[in-house]
Amino acid sequence: MGIVKSNLAISLDGFSSAPGQSRDEPFGVGGGRLTEWMFETDLPGREGDAMIRGTWSDGVGAFVMGRHMFGGYAGEWDLSWRGWWGEDPPYHAPVYVLTHHERAPLPMEGGTTFHFVTDGIEAALKQAQAAAGEQAVSIAGGATTVRQYLAAGLVDELLVHVVPVVLGEGERLWDGLGGLAAEPTEVIASPTVTHVRYRINPSG
Amino acid sequence: MGIVKSNLAISLDGFSSAPGQSRDEPFGVGGGRLTEWMFETDLPGREGDAMIRGTWSDGVGAFVMGRHMFGGYAGEWDLSWRGWWGEDPPYHAPVYVLTHHERAPLPMEGGTTFHFVTDGIEAALKQAQAAAGEQAVSIAGGATTVRQYLAAGLVDELLVHVVPVVLGEGERLWDGLGGLAAEPTEVIASPTVTHVRYRINPSG
Repeated sequence: MGIVKSNLAISLDGFSSAPGQSRDEPFGVGGGRLTEWMFETDLPGREGDAMIRGTWSDGVGAFVMGRHMFGGYAGEWDLSWRGWWGEDPPYHAPVYVLTHHERAPLPMEGGTTFHFVTDGIEAALKQAQAAAGEQAVSIAGGATTVRQYLAAGLVDELLVHVVPVVLGEGERLWDGLGGLAAEPTEVIASPTVTHVRYRINPSG
Repeated sequence: MGIVKSNLAISLDGFSSAPGQSRDEPFGVGGGRLTEWMFETDLPGREGDAMIRGTWSDGVGAFVMGRHMFGGYAGEWDLSWRGWWGEDPPYHAPVYVLTHHERAPLPMEGGTTFHFVTDGIEAALKQAQAAAGEQAVSIAGGATTVRQYLAAGLVDELLVHVVPVVLGEGERLWDGLGGLAAEPTEVIASPTVTHVRYRINPSG
């Protein structure tokens, strides 16, 4: 079985999104700043950012994501909603969406199929691991979902992209994780963002 | 005039101390973990930590610190209290202690003199800058004091030592600083701690 990993862009104060999330502003008002590091990575000095950006899904056989990250549920499913990513999402693998509401699997182009899992984070991870085989499972986000998996001790590796801005409010990755220990195993830095890869609970 | 800088060890979730601070546990219960990176820096792979530790006061002509960091006031001054650092504190320069309570200057061995400033953070910084001349002023801590200077736009450079542990509660560096922008200018990493130097409000 492969490892369970996650990667998430966070502000200096640990927020992965700002308040006011909507279809127009999926990272909340002002939270789009957290995604800017992914653009213009061909500029000088940004080779590390380009590498990180280009390898985010390497070795990943399946993904898990929270319901807000997928979107499309507001009292009932909007069945025309097929995620934020267009007809050919960048996952190219099964994606297990955590939700309390049943929906039939949604096959997309390019190998991505969204599966909707209603029986909790451990069940979703088991399904993802079965699909991934020897490959890794990635907990794709958002912060609430990553935090749940961290709190349950189910994450082996966390890669954070620390964006040098203070958001002040939003959804905070670290809340409720007091006592979590980690070991930084790789740091890649540019003037735009600092990427730190952690092994979680290394002695655990 | 030199720059104003600060350096502070913080947890992944941004705390510079845990609750329960006392003379026995100046970083709070469990917060001593934030200082462990300063020890055993002669071990392999820790050359960067040794360098950071060995140069923390280079080029600094005066310091400013908060009253809790100095200690010794509880309703009235304990005049036998001469700080946490023994008779020869590591500052070797004037140190301006923010307090609401008058106390005569306290000269120590090795060039350190503690001055007690009762008229606010800007007054303390002006006195420190006058003493430092062309050298830098360092805002020595704790987090509340550093945060006040950051909020007032008075800090040019912030060096954080990110210790890979989640404390969950305590005194948080980033609180109330929403909108602060920074640019990482140097990153030094080891398996123990990640040091990131930021230029604060680079376009401001």
